Amino acid sequence: MWNPDEVLRANEAPLRSHAGGDAYARAGVDIGAGNAAVARYKDVTSDWRHPSQLGAIGGFSGLFAMPGDAAHALVASTDGVGTKILIAALAKRYDTIGADLVNHCVNDILVVNAKPLFFLDYLAVGKLDPDIAGAVVAGVQRACRAHDCALLGGETAEMPGLYEPAHFDLAGTIVGMVRTADVPDPARVGPGDAIVGLPSIGLHTNGYSLARTLIPQTQWDEPFGAASDGRTFVDALLAEHPSYYSAVRAIQAAAQVKAMAHITGGGLLENVPRTLPASCKAVFEQSRWTVAPLMAELVRRGSLGPEERYRTFNMGLGFTLIVPLADAAAACSAWPGAKIVGWIEERRAGDAAVVVHPARA
Amino acid sequence: MWNPDEVLRANEAPLRSHAGGDAYARAGVDIGAGNAAVARYKDVTSDWRHPSQLGAIGGFSGLFAMPGDAAHALVASTDGVGTKILIAALAKRYDTIGADLVNHCVNDILVVNAKPLFFLDYLAVGKLDPDIAGAVVAGVQRACRAHDCALLGGETAEMPGLYEPAHFDLAGTIVGMVRTADVPDPARVGPGDAIVGLPSIGLHTNGYSLARTLIPQTQWDEPFGAASDGRTFVDALLAEHPSYYSAVRAIQAAAQVKAMAHITGGGLLENVPRTLPASCKAVFEQSRWTVAPLMAELVRRGSLGPEERYRTFNMGLGFTLIVPLADAAAACSAWPGAKIVGWIEERRAGDAAVVVHPARA
Repeated sequence: MWNPDEVLRANEAPLRSHAGGDAYARAGVDIGAGNAAVARYKDVTSDWRHPSQLGAIGGFSGLFAMPGDAAHALVASTDGVGTKILIAALAKRYDTIGADLVNHCVNDILVVNAKPLFFLDYLAVGKLDPDIAGAVVAGVQRACRAHDCALLGGETAEMPGLYEPAHFDLAGTIVGMVRTADVPDPARVGPGDAIVGLPSIGLHTNGYSLARTLIPQTQWDEPFGAASDGRTFVDALLAEHPSYYSAVRAIQAAAQVKAMAHITGGGLLENVPRTLPASCKAVFEQSRWTVAPLMAELVRRGSLGPEERYRTFNMGLGFTLIVPLADAAAACSAWPGAKIVGWIEERRAGDAAVVVHPARA
Repeated sequence: MWNPDEVLRANEAPLRSHAGGDAYARAGVDIGAGNAAVARYKDVTSDWRHPSQLGAIGGFSGLFAMPGDAAHALVASTDGVGTKILIAALAKRYDTIGADLVNHCVNDILVVNAKPLFFLDYLAVGKLDPDIAGAVVAGVQRACRAHDCALLGGETAEMPGLYEPAHFDLAGTIVGMVRTADVPDPARVGPGDAIVGLPSIGLHTNGYSLARTLIPQTQWDEPFGAASDGRTFVDALLAEHPSYYSAVRAIQAAAQVKAMAHITGGGLLENVPRTLPASCKAVFEQSRWTVAPLMAELVRRGSLGPEERYRTFNMGLGFTLIVPLADAAAACSAWPGAKIVGWIEERRAGDAAVVVHPARA
């Protein structure tokens, strides 16, 4: 593994990555506290580390040497769906939030090239409604099946007093595996490489605390987007977090993939650097892809500056792959919607790890 | 595996097992809803099952064939700590709840003889306090290290609007492994076998919604138990869920262990039958062990009948092992506190799967 001293609390990064947004702080998410918590985690876990624990890459997941088979590693990640759950609960739409969760987790372990093996969910409710719980788990099962991933178990906890009656929380853990030789090595990334982006379909599972302050519930049923398609704000807000598994496999069949990033909380600015060597920066040219209408609307309503918008939302890119320039065209041909969205340059002292050139108005 | 058609939603059982308690219903936990949710889960997951998924035993965990190694299986379980979390939050004691969670999960996979490999936690908060989060994760790390189990990752989610500022929820997932030949086979259990019990130290992580209604917060700092030790109600309520890992390994070195049960929600009445063949019933004689003072107090305050008390609380036994009668003395000698607490009898039509003979007053 390329960096065995990587931060232990692998997928804490989505929290740490809230840093930098005034609007986010106004929405109730405390940035400094997130950074401080990660520092405390490093501190309290520094006394011991299991010898089979391998270096994480970018902190999207944790790797553990497969017992008895050094050529493979188990890869695991735990995640939730954030306050998207509150929108689902208020809108009484329960059939997609389970797939949001599974697909998010699939993408997190895909960054190290892992194939899903099994998944377990945790559903906590204030008052248990069997139909709601069943709909949530049906979404989990649907997305698991789509990835040939066993739904191995779960826990449903009814906790009066902790959750309001209509509220619930949903988290899950995925376990996958990878040949250790197939784990992407960011050290191979170099200036001149191209960045291929895969389109997002909305907020996915990040930025909802802010989105809820900018789009009040009273407007959720108003039409949003092209008039002809009859979609509303809440349709856009609850659009399902897509899995990039098939897209990545298709691109890998056509191109060498040196590094990947799942664009979650922290956006391009904080997720892409997690898989770059220190000698490189990523330069994005936003005219090369389309920003989803929902994000454009949120940027407008929140008067979000460039820094804040690219740190809070995915701004139209859900997953990025770094490929040799010579492979870039083949990569884009391998999957509909895949586009060259930027390139890698040498990073000099004082340079940011990610630069986004906004589209001209 | 002995029963490949076992219920898919393996560790749902703790919820399902709330059935039967009037006092529990008064505390806000809906029994019928739990049973209905489990039925819905079976329904929505019946369309597909991964071929590597093995039959669960008693539903304490899920088993998945180790890729490339049919002689071993991965074993996984997700769980939370229930509303014990509310007591920890209100009492502002954060250093043991993480170990409660890990030890609960260790015991759940120990039922199928699994050795822990790694653990991931999910911590959700209304308002992130780095010191509190650090203390919680320190408890997770401490218990992981005690089991040579990697803390492979975790997720911390700050969700204003879903949790009250001082509230938090904590769940976790453990992954372990077992030689498939070493998975206990309940079919070997037969009449005449002895049941060896390991003592509990309190409620562990179950029964807290009811306990909170019977011991109001205003009494938490009152002395409880032997006057000399200075302990209070809240000390007793937050006593750490013990791991039975070392005890079970010591007993296995001295005795043949045919089946095991972790006594969680549902108590002896619902957990022990999960690992019994249909032809057997378990008969407990409560005079053979000591009921913890906290449970005796809760039974008194709640006027809980025998059925309800043995279905809601562990009543003094945290883990049970079924051994041949000839091995029972050796098993008890192998670990301090291990006692013969009952035996296995033939189960005839109409018999309950578990019978508890109360101690005479």
